Formats: sequence, structure tokens, C-alpha cells
Amino acid sequence: MSSADGIRLGFLGLGTVGAGALAALQEEHEAITRRVGAELIAVRAAVRRPDRPRPVSLDGITLSTDPVAVATADDVDIVVECIGGVTVAREAVLAAMAAGKSVVTANKELIAKHSRELFDLADRHGVDLAFEGSVGGGIPIVQPLRHGLTANRVKQVVGIINGTTNYILSAMTRSGESFEQLLSEAQAKGYAEADPTDDVDGHDAAYKLTILAMLAFDTPLSEDQVYREGIRRITPADMALARSLGYRFKLLAIARDRGAKLELRVHPCLVPESHPLAAVNDVYNAIFVSASPVGEVMFYGRGAGADPTGSAVAGDVIQVARNLRGGGVRGFPLACGTPRAVATVDEIESSYYVRMKVVDQAGVLAVLAGILGKNLVSIAQVLQTRGEPGDAAEQVAELVWVTHETTEARLRRSLAEINGLDACLEVRNVFRCFGVDA
Amino acid sequence: MSSADGIRLGFLGLGTVGAGALAALQEEHEAITRRVGAELIAVRAAVRRPDRPRPVSLDGITLSTDPVAVATADDVDIVVECIGGVTVAREAVLAAMAAGKSVVTANKELIAKHSRELFDLADRHGVDLAFEGSVGGGIPIVQPLRHGLTANRVKQVVGIINGTTNYILSAMTRSGESFEQLLSEAQAKGYAEADPTDDVDGHDAAYKLTILAMLAFDTPLSEDQVYREGIRRITPADMALARSLGYRFKLLAIARDRGAKLELRVHPCLVPESHPLAAVNDVYNAIFVSASPVGEVMFYGRGAGADPTGSAVAGDVIQVARNLRGGGVRGFPLACGTPRAVATVDEIESSYYVRMKVVDQAGVLAVLAGILGKNLVSIAQVLQTRGEPGDAAEQVAELVWVTHETTEARLRRSLAEINGLDACLEVRNVFRCFGVDA
Repeated sequence: MSSADGIRLGFLGLGTVGAGALAALQEEHEAITRRVGAELIAVRAAVRRPDRPRPVSLDGITLSTDPVAVATADDVDIVVECIGGVTVAREAVLAAMAAGKSVVTANKELIAKHSRELFDLADRHGVDLAFEGSVGGGIPIVQPLRHGLTANRVKQVVGIINGTTNYILSAMTRSGESFEQLLSEAQAKGYAEADPTDDVDGHDAAYKLTILAMLAFDTPLSEDQVYREGIRRITPADMALARSLGYRFKLLAIARDRGAKLELRVHPCLVPESHPLAAVNDVYNAIFVSASPVGEVMFYGRGAGADPTGSAVAGDVIQVARNLRGGGVRGFPLACGTPRAVATVDEIESSYYVRMKVVDQAGVLAVLAGILGKNLVSIAQVLQTRGEPGDAAEQVAELVWVTHETTEARLRRSLAEINGLDACLEVRNVFRCFGVDA
Repeated sequence: MSSADGIRLGFLGLGTVGAGALAALQEEHEAITRRVGAELIAVRAAVRRPDRPRPVSLDGITLSTDPVAVATADDVDIVVECIGGVTVAREAVLAAMAAGKSVVTANKELIAKHSRELFDLADRHGVDLAFEGSVGGGIPIVQPLRHGLTANRVKQVVGIINGTTNYILSAMTRSGESFEQLLSEAQAKGYAEADPTDDVDGHDAAYKLTILAMLAFDTPLSEDQVYREGIRRITPADMALARSLGYRFKLLAIARDRGAKLELRVHPCLVPESHPLAAVNDVYNAIFVSASPVGEVMFYGRGAGADPTGSAVAGDVIQVARNLRGGGVRGFPLACGTPRAVATVDEIESSYYVRMKVVDQAGVLAVLAGILGKNLVSIAQVLQTRGEPGDAAEQVAELVWVTHETTEARLRRSLAEINGLDACLEVRNVFRCFGVDA
């Protein structure tokens, strides 16, 4: 399965992640050779522009513009896919596995959208498919879920798994500035893309959550089963109120096993400041796993970038190489359990933060409490404030309340009734909370 | 290597950890069989008292009082050592490996004291030796260091890896009570042993640090190379001062690669409250790894107990079983790099907290600063207080200062000079700090 001289790698793409992984393998070449028991040699790389200068040595590497040719070359033992996306990358990865080659990738979109096809093919051809770098950058989380925690029944995985949004939310918390201002700042610093949709609307986190949930619950899933909301509608007023109620805003990715169904959701969330996830700031990521018998474990680190993700990809390459050397034992079979039903958004169970503009008169809170009580929604916290600038002049007040855990359907029914009240002038914002009843 | 019916386990010891691991394997039997591709069957167990009732089913398990007999029995494929200590456990583990059996253990003392002998024997006989449960309870940390982070050069590992002392220190921080009072409370709650030496004097943490450092730096080490101090001398006055200076007391286990030498030390430490380790409270453990290229990653969870440690041991059993099924590929070779020199305590580089009783008169601080400056020790923070009850009546004050990073030798030389001053009545306590200059 490998040449006598070592184990030969074919890189697909030498952008940020590909160059990062190659640099990591070159940097610690001697120690890695010792650990694998064989030399790892990069022999081929497919790149779009072979003449472009790269921040890494290409000595001994034959460049090509044809990913499938590299993926299926006779002298390649392990294919390292760092192209991204689901067109060329998918075609090349499928071709590599069909040619009997193990694949390492950090491509979250590919795994989240095409897991079944990829896992089946890996199984059929008896090859490894490793993707530690697809979630949480350099944080080891895929391997712990596939290996170390594999004796556990996972109940819940909650993650801060998008660095861009966490950077923006951390900055909003600190500065009180608006989402738009801080998005521009993040773009200027290179922490957000020119088109930020993938990050700020939660697509990136949804891909990663799909992968975490497949591993945690050992079941096939795809990213379109994830309920998704972005962070654009969080205002400085919400930020300030969350703080005074003892919470921090985070874009959470939540996967919960509710027995009959799974909950899979990505949305902004108020997290109690005493929870370890509330302290995860800026571009850091963290994944919090609740499982039996282990209890609660958390993994924390930099969630993106050439170095952290390069570390994860290089770690996978070493592991797969070691498996090849040992005679081809592979990682665990992937997501091979029975398919599971996923809850609709109405069935989600959560607590909620609601901020509304009301007529400033006695009895409003009592009417509100009556409607919530009738709908079996129980209040955990209430705060009445002077509201936004201009509110006071109108003889109105702002009322903010946080509920105990209930279903989304019950909350929506309550809000429909509350909206019909004369005293309710406007429901200004609604967010889910996490861990209020913990 | 295994019977057609499955992979057969022999347990050595069915106390807290052994019973926890067996329960974890029984609880998720079906899912685990699917993941391994074969059934895991506990066939034998060595226990001291076969008639004692156990919190776990012993159906189909032949009990014995002879650990070596179980460890070498023909019908045992994997030996799960949960006896603890380094006499019987060592003898049985060596016998098992010599008989060609892979071993799973959570025995930190055994690995920390006899790693070389054990690793060599595992290598010689081509068997697995897995010990995830030996550090951090259920937190996956051994596997991430051996696998996921293996492309990295580790610079530093800092851990809170003893639950008993962390429980006591957290309670001291909250309540202001003394070490003795809270030790008694921890003993009453079962968080501390009747003889607490192993925990409160840092032996347990030193074993675990030895294991972490061997994996992180890929070099053979033994626990007697770890510099060690316990938590007994922390007073309520130190606790309160640390808080007002912005720190929390933690028993830290620190392994640093300083290039020429390694630093290996376990001692109480003032940690800035903004550092993620400062928020790790009660019986929780956390391990903070700084490495290149990954940056900083942290692992957090419950550090002890039947369930978390059972999860780690069961996870190792599954992994080793999977390796056996796949034809016997083993984990990475262990600590196979070149031996490294370890720094003496004088060579340690740290910042320091010093609390002293001084004559309350002008110019004392200037004299002090002069001595420190001459010894190249630079001050980061100073606090003058009224001191302990009775101090005020004597016209004395208490002076607390925190230094920037320096060597232990320089600090000791400075303190010797300061002790000789008429104005210095007493050096009340000295502790190392962590992360002051980060």
C-alpha cells in the first residue's frame, strides 16, 4: 500500500489550509517520521495556478492543474483534499477513494452535504476518510467523538464553532457598537469575508454541527436538517439588556437527543455568564459535550486559520499513514446507526428572551403573565426599562422577560396573543436562551 | 488474536474504576458491538473478595483472586488493569504483555514510575498499552496528545489535574475558611481521602504531569523528576489578597519546554482571573496545551470518579479491540524521542507573589525596590495593607508584591537580602504565579 521509501501524499489545493498542513508536516519532519515509522513524502499537488508563489517549500512535488489526476495517481498513497466546496473537491475525493486511496479533508461543506455517499464509498473500498480539520480548526473533537468518548451515550453537543461571528459578538459585547460597524471592522482585519453570508447567517456553523451530530449520535444526517438563524438582528440594546440580566450573546450550534427526535439548530443565544461557553471569546471556538457516563467535557481552541487547521489536517495524515503502515486498519465505521427523526422548529424546547414596547400603565404585566400562564409558559426573569430613546416621551416602557424552558410552539402562541393586546405596542426582538434551567 | 465469538476481556480489580468501566461497556453493549465490529465479552476478573456485592452484573465472568492468572489466561484477549498501585498491578501488567496481551489501565502511578519498562515491553511484544484514564478522568487528553496533536511541537502543558485540591481551593476562595476546615469538609463529602497526602501534597498531580509531559515532549520521564509542593501553606489571608490582586489560587501542574531543559513542576499558583484555567472550579479538571502550529487548546471535564474514568477506560478498551480486529496495528510508539534534561528548582522561570510584614515607615518600599532591581527582579504589582490582626497595634504594615518573570535563584537571592533588613520583620508567604506576563 505504500512504497518502500515512505508514504506518498497528493495534495489537492495548496491554499491556506493545504499550505498550513504541508508546512506542519515539513516543520516536524523528523519527529513525525519517528512516530509514523516511515517518511511522509509530498509527491504531487493539484493547484489552479502552478506559477503562484507559496509560503511553503514545493521541492520534490510535481504540480498539476488536474485534481482528479493527482487523486488517482499511482504514486499517491494518501490524498489530502484542501480545495473546499462540493464540485471539484467531491469529484476528486470520490475518484481517490474509488482508486483505493485514503483521504484526509477539512472540507466541512463536503462532509455535511455528502456524508452518506462518502462514508459508503470509504466503507466499500476499505479506505480511511479523516476530517478532524472540518470542525473547530485545531481542536481535537472529531477524534475524541469517534474514539475516546465512544463508550458514551451523547445527550447534547453545544458549540461555538464559527470564529467570525464569535469575534463580532465579543466585540459588540465589549464596545456596544452595532453589528454593521463591527462586521466592517472584522472584514478590515480579515476575520470576515467580503461576502459574510456563510458565517453571519450560520451556514458554516450548520455544516459543522451536522458533522458533530453525526458522530455524537452515530446516525446519518445532512446540513439541510439543521434549523438556522444568523446574528444580524442582535442590536446594541439587546446586547446591553442581556448583560444586565447576566447573559452573553453567542451563536450556538446545538444538537440534542430528545429521545424520540433529535434537535439540530444554529442560532444566536443568551448564555448565562457563569457557563464555561460564555467565557469563549473572539476567534476562539469551544465544543461542550454532555454524555453518559463521562458527564460534561469541553474542548477549546482556535477555530480557524492556516496553523490550527493545518495542525488538524497534518494530525489526520499522520494517523492515516500509521494505519496504512499497520496493515490498513481504519477508523470506526461512520454514522452507521439507525436514521433518526429531527424535530421541527415548533417542537424545539428552549427558554426565550423577549423584548417588547408596552404602554407604561399599571396592570400590563399581570395581563401578560395571564396569557403566558394559560399557554404554560413560565417566566424566569423580568426587567422593565425606560426603553429606547424616544420611548419615555411617548409614555411607554420597555419590558424584557426570560422564560423557563418551553416549546417554541407555546411561545409563538403566547406572542400572537400578546401582539393582539392594546397595551403591546411592539415585540422588538425574541431570542432563545441556553442553560437557564440548568 | 481473538475468538470467533468476540473479543474477551479480563479485568484486574472491580473497584470504583473497574466496575465503572464494566458498567459503561454493558450499558452501551449494542452500539459498541457495532462500532468495534465484534462483541466485547468480559470473561474473567481478579478480585480480592469474590463474595463482595458489586454495582454491576458479573454474569458469565469467572472470578479469581489471582491477578496474574487472569492476566495470562488463554481465553483473555485484552487485560483491563484497575487494581492501582505498583506492586501487584505492575507484576500482572508485565505478565499480561509478556503473554502477548494488550493492556488498558488507568493507573497513573504505574505509568509515571515504570514507563520505560512498560513501554519497552509493549514494543517488544507488539501489544497495545492504553492509559487514557490515567490523567483527567473522562477528559480525552492522552489520545489527543498521542494522535490529534501529533504534528505539533508542544511548548507547554498546564493542568489542573487533581480534583481534591481544586475542590478545596475553590471552597477556600468562596468561603474564606482555612485549608484545615475545608479539608475536613472534603473528607466528609468523600472528595478527599482519610490520608489526604497523595492529593494535597501534589503526588497525584505529579504522576499525571509525568504522563502528560512524556506524551507532549515524546521523551522518557519519571515522576521523581517533578518538582513538587502541596497546598497546605495557603492561608485565608493569601486567598483574600490574591483575589484583590486579580488572581485565583490553583494547584497547577506545569510542563514547559525551555529548549535546553524541560521544567516539570506541581505547586500552588496564582492564576490571573481572566485566564481560562481560573474558571475551572470544584472537582473539574482542565489541561491547557500551547503548541505550534495549533496555538492554544484546552480540555475540560470531570477529573475523577467511577463514571468519567470508566468512560475513559471503556473508550480505550474499544479502541484496542478495534485495533485487534484490524490486524493488530497499535497506537503510536511511546516516548521514543531522545532523553531530555530537566531544570532544577533554582532554574525555574516564574513570576512570584511575596507577602511580608514590614515596619510601617517611609522608604521601606524604596529599599526593597533597590534590592530587587540589583538582582534583576522586576515588580509587576504592589499592595500595602493593614496586615493581620494585631499588625496595626505594632506600627507595622503588610506589603504584598508580584514580580514579572525571573528565575527562582534570583528571587531567592533577593529574599535572602530582604530578610536581612531591619525593616523586614517577616516574609509571611511566597508563591509562584502563572501567566502574569502573558
